[in-house]
Amino acid sequence: MPKSSFQEIILQLQEFWASHGCLITQPYYTQVGAGTMNPNTFLRVLGPEPWNVAYVEPSVRPDDGRYGENPNRFQKHTQFQVILKPDPGNPQELYLESLKALGIDPRQHDIRFVEDNWEQPAIAAWGLGWEVWLDGQEITQFTYFQQMGGVTLNPVSVEITYGLERILITLNNAKAIWDEEWGAGVTYGEITRREEFEHSKYYYEVADVERARKMYDLFSAEADACLAQGLLVPAHDYILKCNHAFNILDARGAISIAERQAFFRRIRELARRVAEGYEEQRKELEYPLLKESQTSKVKSQVAGRSTFDVRPATFVLEIGVEELPANDVDTAYEQLTQRIPTLLNELHLEHGNIRIFSTPRRLVVSIDSLAPNQPDREDLVKGPPADKAFDKDGIALPAAMGFAKKNNVSTKDLEVREEGGGKYVFAVVKQKGRPTPEVLAEALPKLVESIKFEKSMRWNDSGVAFSRPIRWYVALLGDMVIPFEYAGVVSGNVTRGLRPYDSPEIKIPSADKYFDVIREAGITLDKEERKASIVEQVKQAASLVGGEAIFDYVGASHDSPLLNEVTNLVEMPTAVMGGFSEESLSLPRDVLISVMKKHQRYFPLTPAPSPSGRGESSGVRRGEGLLPHFIAIRNGDDIGIDMVREGNEHVLGARFADANFFVREDVKLKLEEYRPKLSGLTFHTKLGSMLDKSDRMLKLVNDLAPMLGITNNQLPTIQRATFLAKADLVTQMVTEMTSLQGIIGREYALRSGEPKEVAIAIGEHYQTVPQTKVGLAVALADRIDSLVGFFGAGLAPTGAKDPFGLRRAAIGIVQPLIEHDVDFDLVEAVRKSAKTQPIEVRDEVQNQILDFLTGRLKVVLNEAGYKYDVVDAVLAEQSANPAASARAVKQLQAWVGRGDWSTILASYARCVRITRDQKETFKIKEKFLREVEERTLYEVFNLQSTDFNGDIDAFLKVIVKLIPSITSFFEKVLVMAEEKDVRENRLGLLQRIANLANGVADLSKLEGF
Amino acid sequence: MPKSSFQEIILQLQEFWASHGCLITQPYYTQVGAGTMNPNTFLRVLGPEPWNVAYVEPSVRPDDGRYGENPNRFQKHTQFQVILKPDPGNPQELYLESLKALGIDPRQHDIRFVEDNWEQPAIAAWGLGWEVWLDGQEITQFTYFQQMGGVTLNPVSVEITYGLERILITLNNAKAIWDEEWGAGVTYGEITRREEFEHSKYYYEVADVERARKMYDLFSAEADACLAQGLLVPAHDYILKCNHAFNILDARGAISIAERQAFFRRIRELARRVAEGYEEQRKELEYPLLKESQTSKVKSQVAGRSTFDVRPATFVLEIGVEELPANDVDTAYEQLTQRIPTLLNELHLEHGNIRIFSTPRRLVVSIDSLAPNQPDREDLVKGPPADKAFDKDGIALPAAMGFAKKNNVSTKDLEVREEGGGKYVFAVVKQKGRPTPEVLAEALPKLVESIKFEKSMRWNDSGVAFSRPIRWYVALLGDMVIPFEYAGVVSGNVTRGLRPYDSPEIKIPSADKYFDVIREAGITLDKEERKASIVEQVKQAASLVGGEAIFDYVGASHDSPLLNEVTNLVEMPTAVMGGFSEESLSLPRDVLISVMKKHQRYFPLTPAPSPSGRGESSGVRRGEGLLPHFIAIRNGDDIGIDMVREGNEHVLGARFADANFFVREDVKLKLEEYRPKLSGLTFHTKLGSMLDKSDRMLKLVNDLAPMLGITNNQLPTIQRATFLAKADLVTQMVTEMTSLQGIIGREYALRSGEPKEVAIAIGEHYQTVPQTKVGLAVALADRIDSLVGFFGAGLAPTGAKDPFGLRRAAIGIVQPLIEHDVDFDLVEAVRKSAKTQPIEVRDEVQNQILDFLTGRLKVVLNEAGYKYDVVDAVLAEQSANPAASARAVKQLQAWVGRGDWSTILASYARCVRITRDQKETFKIKEKFLREVEERTLYEVFNLQSTDFNGDIDAFLKVIVKLIPSITSFFEKVLVMAEEKDVRENRLGLLQRIANLANGVADLSKLEGF
Repeated sequence: MPKSSFQEIILQLQEFWASHGCLITQPYYTQVGAGTMNPNTFLRVLGPEPWNVAYVEPSVRPDDGRYGENPNRFQKHTQFQVILKPDPGNPQELYLESLKALGIDPRQHDIRFVEDNWEQPAIAAWGLGWEVWLDGQEITQFTYFQQMGGVTLNPVSVEITYGLERILITLNNAKAIWDEEWGAGVTYGEITRREEFEHSKYYYEVADVERARKMYDLFSAEADACLAQGLLVPAHDYILKCNHAFNILDARGAISIAERQAFFRRIRELARRVAEGYEEQRKELEYPLLKESQTSKVKSQVAGRSTFDVRPATFVLEIGVEELPANDVDTAYEQLTQRIPTLLNELHLEHGNIRIFSTPRRLVVSIDSLAPNQPDREDLVKGPPADKAFDKDGIALPAAMGFAKKNNVSTKDLEVREEGGGKYVFAVVKQKGRPTPEVLAEALPKLVESIKFEKSMRWNDSGVAFSRPIRWYVALLGDMVIPFEYAGVVSGNVTRGLRPYDSPEIKIPSADKYFDVIREAGITLDKEERKASIVEQVKQAASLVGGEAIFDYVGASHDSPLLNEVTNLVEMPTAVMGGFSEESLSLPRDVLISVMKKHQRYFPLTPAPSPSGRGESSGVRRGEGLLPHFIAIRNGDDIGIDMVREGNEHVLGARFADANFFVREDVKLKLEEYRPKLSGLTFHTKLGSMLDKSDRMLKLVNDLAPMLGITNNQLPTIQRATFLAKADLVTQMVTEMTSLQGIIGREYALRSGEPKEVAIAIGEHYQTVPQTKVGLAVALADRIDSLVGFFGAGLAPTGAKDPFGLRRAAIGIVQPLIEHDVDFDLVEAVRKSAKTQPIEVRDEVQNQILDFLTGRLKVVLNEAGYKYDVVDAVLAEQSANPAASARAVKQLQAWVGRGDWSTILASYARCVRITRDQKETFKIKEKFLREVEERTLYEVFNLQSTDFNGDIDAFLKVIVKLIPSITSFFEKVLVMAEEKDVRENRLGLLQRIANLANGVADLSKLEGF
Repeated sequence: MPKSSFQEIILQLQEFWASHGCLITQPYYTQVGAGTMNPNTFLRVLGPEPWNVAYVEPSVRPDDGRYGENPNRFQKHTQFQVILKPDPGNPQELYLESLKALGIDPRQHDIRFVEDNWEQPAIAAWGLGWEVWLDGQEITQFTYFQQMGGVTLNPVSVEITYGLERILITLNNAKAIWDEEWGAGVTYGEITRREEFEHSKYYYEVADVERARKMYDLFSAEADACLAQGLLVPAHDYILKCNHAFNILDARGAISIAERQAFFRRIRELARRVAEGYEEQRKELEYPLLKESQTSKVKSQVAGRSTFDVRPATFVLEIGVEELPANDVDTAYEQLTQRIPTLLNELHLEHGNIRIFSTPRRLVVSIDSLAPNQPDREDLVKGPPADKAFDKDGIALPAAMGFAKKNNVSTKDLEVREEGGGKYVFAVVKQKGRPTPEVLAEALPKLVESIKFEKSMRWNDSGVAFSRPIRWYVALLGDMVIPFEYAGVVSGNVTRGLRPYDSPEIKIPSADKYFDVIREAGITLDKEERKASIVEQVKQAASLVGGEAIFDYVGASHDSPLLNEVTNLVEMPTAVMGGFSEESLSLPRDVLISVMKKHQRYFPLTPAPSPSGRGESSGVRRGEGLLPHFIAIRNGDDIGIDMVREGNEHVLGARFADANFFVREDVKLKLEEYRPKLSGLTFHTKLGSMLDKSDRMLKLVNDLAPMLGITNNQLPTIQRATFLAKADLVTQMVTEMTSLQGIIGREYALRSGEPKEVAIAIGEHYQTVPQTKVGLAVALADRIDSLVGFFGAGLAPTGAKDPFGLRRAAIGIVQPLIEHDVDFDLVEAVRKSAKTQPIEVRDEVQNQILDFLTGRLKVVLNEAGYKYDVVDAVLAEQSANPAASARAVKQLQAWVGRGDWSTILASYARCVRITRDQKETFKIKEKFLREVEERTLYEVFNLQSTDFNGDIDAFLKVIVKLIPSITSFFEKVLVMAEEKDVRENRLGLLQRIANLANGVADLSKLEGF
């Protein structure tokens, strides 16, 4: 195939979109980060006027500069931007056509629409859509804009943003852009590579921070001045300049988190004013581009049929959608699974088996043997009181007449019955069962409407919101189309095939044939079937290189989130194995895995255990235990699979190169040299910088160490680890991939020559349960500081809101203490931490924190399978020491399970109940022990230890020993004796027994108490 | 014809140039004033590498903003930029092809290449080329770059810059751009008009001057920082931002002339460093784009012939060029006219009639009956002295042998001859006449090389400089091609036809046929014939609307500069008459004429005198006496003439609209309100602002008025006129069209309600000879101030350099004084002015100034036809009073023409000569008057008046009366008597006669004295 040139791609796209009714305009004359910022998008998507435009936009993103060394990442890349307003109804298909115009055959590649929720807070804009992946490479962003500059868009615009460099690389099956032709025999690299170097150097090293700040101020002041005069485009220009100045500062690392917010707020505010002003301006101009409304509503093309089969028939509903996000595929499935049986019940429709399926492009409901009609029914309808309905002579009064008429019966047919002691007239209303098609035609729109998603979007003038646009319905009862319309789409009997086959329209002859047709089209409807197929293919592919895929099954359901997601991204899964360079294995293992799994949705591979049961010992610390291979899941068959493989390999190679770039840059400094830079990173305005936090952690950990029973010779290690724990936050690698925090810290600590224990602790301190005691100490210091700090600052979680992740922090305190089984005094820890905070944390706030921790502890224990009452009983006494609580809960649950438990509990309970209301604790004076039984009880009691240290077993064993004495006591002795001294003596004795549970558990919270 | 859309034009041009080997790139990401500033031009034209690129460039020029009201002028217009490096040899033809691709048929339009010397001092860049006119509209700039960023370019790049808006207007035959389609059914106006308004308002009214200055400073500091690190593109970006900030300041009127220079210097310096750095960088990269040299020198395709005609034959040389500037058409003509006869003489070639012709595209030499050979010749060559050549025995010594050998003779043939008293050997060298073709083949390259122009340019790797590129030669002697090569072009027998006919190649069968072929091709070779044709056509067209064209014949040769220029712009003149709206006649007449003549090269029309001898009295002050018509001269025949007319009408309409815009803006203030703004306009750094100058003029005019004999009641008028004289310099109209200074001042003065006399004087004070005395006073104050100021500042003209136009200023002092015949004391005037200057003007400088004035006065008088000696004689005595000098010269010239002049002069001369060497002036003591003749002379002398006040007539009448007495005196009286008293008495008497000429003339300077 002849190679493409960069300029050809542009000319072809211009021609394609011009021939599809788009204006072709030019790049903007000031640096923008994306084509979205060009007024031809930012402004024109506002308001009701139609607007179809396409233009090239060289987009400048300073912090993407790689000195011309990365094959995929540049400070300036070239976007081709298309705006379609309103949604033409088939934007994905138009887009795919445009790729064909470039020579990209969807049959030869893997083209995927992968969820992407676009958001640009700096200009108060958001939309939903996808990244479009071509063989694993993101080549396009496809977005339905919902809001711009804070203004809700109506109609919605479709934005298609092509990444031209990536498209050229893919088209030419190249490793890098540099040697590909721009045009006229000149390479892309010749034109841009030196510039890439120069600009990268400028943005990262040379740009003057003070001057850039001044520019920002000047630009924003000019924007204000323009807005004051209603000059919107000039104002917008300055907003763009502000943005670029900000980006320069950011690339120079001169922006703290707190500052970032302030910058954004300022820009957002300006953008909002421009957007609102523009809406107003267009309105004043009376929307010159607004043509006569051409939305002659599409009507159902399927005429209703008056006669139909009277036998039960299969019903199938297929809701055809543009690619749903993976989660929404599941969400919709669950809702339909719950909803359909109820719905059929409500509709009084007899039915056979119900099946629900979901794929990224279709939600399917299939019902066997659906009755052709509702059954006829009789309903007894209550009317007015009899005496108001008829006079004494039985003549119908107006009330009866009205009631009869309303129910479509004659007054003669009204019956008088007694109800609730009164007499009323009743009508027996016969309801003729309606034909099922009629019932469904009414019900189906509501069914579709009832499906809700976490995030939904509008796309056409129906105003309906859904996860992604609905494009077709199949609704067949037998061979009859159930006609309905919803979201501007009418039902029919035509489905669409697989994306890689160009989504051909396929007619479904009848509901019975639906599954055959779908299977024949290559679509695997059943998610479990797709999943099984993927697992099978992945295993098979992995075995070819002697590897095993990392599925990372988690949780009780033992599911793999990656597997689940991948399953929901395809309708016809085909595994593709690719490789990457051995050199890349020198990157930290977690970086490799993170890139493969999170960014690319690939399955990484480890060497399979050798037959002797031992893995191949590659013995390397980095890329440890990984094979230089990956498995991707393509949507489609295996045509062109080599091209798909190469494409995916290229993408991964570029991503690893990018990671390499960061690591290489980062390790120019030692880890400890990053720590001072934490001062530039705001933790929270009320709580200071990350450096402040790090200092507090260091103070706190000195207090915590002895509480954790840590020896003095471990202390320096703990201190060093705490000292360095947060330093990686300001490295480029973590800035780029936040999920690698800690992991990178560990890696860099090792490279900086820190002791292994220190490195491990740094890496562990973000894990819920660190493995080492050192890691535990750092983690506790971190989490307790956060908890105490945020509560102290009045930022405790409320309702569902937990912006600082304090629930997780609390779990991260109690859970590891339990798992390490370390006794620990939360009260003391909170008190110590409170003293280090820059704000006052009063006692009642400290109590709130402890309550909050108790709450989390309860959740942890409940989730571990302990009974609520058991947990409550223990926590009532031992919540400040999670490890002890856990032990106690375990013991108590065992006791509760004993056959004699009711006896034990009852005996103890008698002691408690009778003394519960006493306000005073009475002393026992032996001289007043009158009866033998009470003397016996007293003696037995005195024989027992009473200091259990929270140990349930010890406590209950004592109780068990006391039972005979207690039983005798209550049988023979009248506690509430008339004589005060005697009475108080007896109560005092029982109180002492009851109080044995103090610090152990509050058994009164147990069932059966 | 279907209308074009803006985006179609762009797509078509992209496609055209892509298919012609150009890279297609994108507009730059920061505001630029022109595509030249894009690094794809600015940087890539540097160094030896080839580079062919085309791109759109929306170009931002704040001070072209017209609030969206002008159909032709916008703050943002769209360029399409093409760079061809090196020159492909046929860039004009490629360009014309591209126009055809847009649907512009050269046969249907008038396409002209009009001289344009491009210069961009801000980036130290220049080049030569043309504006391309399409029906009078400038649609393209076409430039051969010679220098960029101060670096001389090698190879030269061709820059073609299309103005896309203008092309669309022309293509669609539209009145304005607004309603034309951009694409997809959306108009250009819809996309840009509101923005035009907003940006115009921003640039003119809202932009904050202080902030823009700060931006400029920040940008230039960043540029420095980038340069220090060798980051050229980032540095260049900031230069562009500096430029834009400067443009904003300029549009806000915030830049004084002095500041402007400082800004430019700074930007130029930065641009220079970027350019030099880039050259260095490419060199270090070893010029990656430099392919193997493909310059296999083209050789003459015409093989030499060994036999040829022996009869005399016609010779013709045609130098085919790209369109020469009008002046260069004349320059080349003059040089060839002088050179050819001399050349033929030097070449010893017999010849008949010589004819020279020049058109914009060809320089032609035709020689009748050119001899086929040089004649054989004998030359006598002088050798060494005889005694060094031969010994006593006549044997040849080495000197003789060497000499003989050198001259290709035998020593035997050497002759000894006497010369200048010595004996030398001589050789008689016989030279065989060479064939003419051989002689011409050698001589013609040198002939072409000898043609020099004021400004010349290089274009290809021959390195030759010429006015514009040479593209072909016809060189025929009879039917034989004289083969030669110069400037990379080889001679042949093929000429090219008319531009509008696509410059077809036409073979010339023989020199005799040349003129027939050319005439048949429609080309009028003879300039006078073209001129006559134009005059005839213009007169005829004018008569159709009852008008007369304004030719403005000037000077002694009674030529019209406009007519001359127009004649040199075409090879086939065809007059096209068009009209403009009557409304435009409300503009000042001079504005109308200036736009038509200077900008458009149109002939304006006035009403023809009616048969009764009186013009139609339109009676309006504005557009006074003009008809709303114009006549343009098209190059080509009358095909498509209506389209050409409409195009020209559109252009003129737009230009008038622009003028209207300025006038409307300007008259928002009264003229006097502009005066304070003169402080922002630097006159000269040493001499202050224009306001300072204006103040000085006001002071000076108070002194000059009485010297001019102006009455006190005229004084206020003069003061007011002087006060306002310079105010119009800061109006927008004058800023835009400097040639309207004064004219606009007059107009605005009237509109501001100033007295008519004041207005007229303002208007007149730039004219060489103001009509009114008031105007004269203002003009003198202006010019004397300039002269005294600049001389005082050491800035007197040197050699050919006269940057401040002081020669013209001096003529503007003496000439009007002569024409007004006002006696005036220049010495006094200079002295007064010197006192007002901000710097000291010493006496010797004042004398220099007076000498300089005398020099100009001499020129004026000589040019008026007076004899040099007469002028010298008078100026020796009366140069300080030009009017008197002029009167005296006139009188003296009359005397000199008299038949008895020699007698008169002789008589007077005798008195002068005999007394000339006396150092003392002797008193006459009557008692020593011994002889009757001396007494008589003394008595006659005493009867005469001796105070002539410079009056030649009075003086010479006295002399005439004295002649008899003088004659007798010299006959009878011995002047040099021995007796001292007597002798001195006689000398004293003659001295008194000689001194009669004091203050009148120095007759000793006359011929025959």
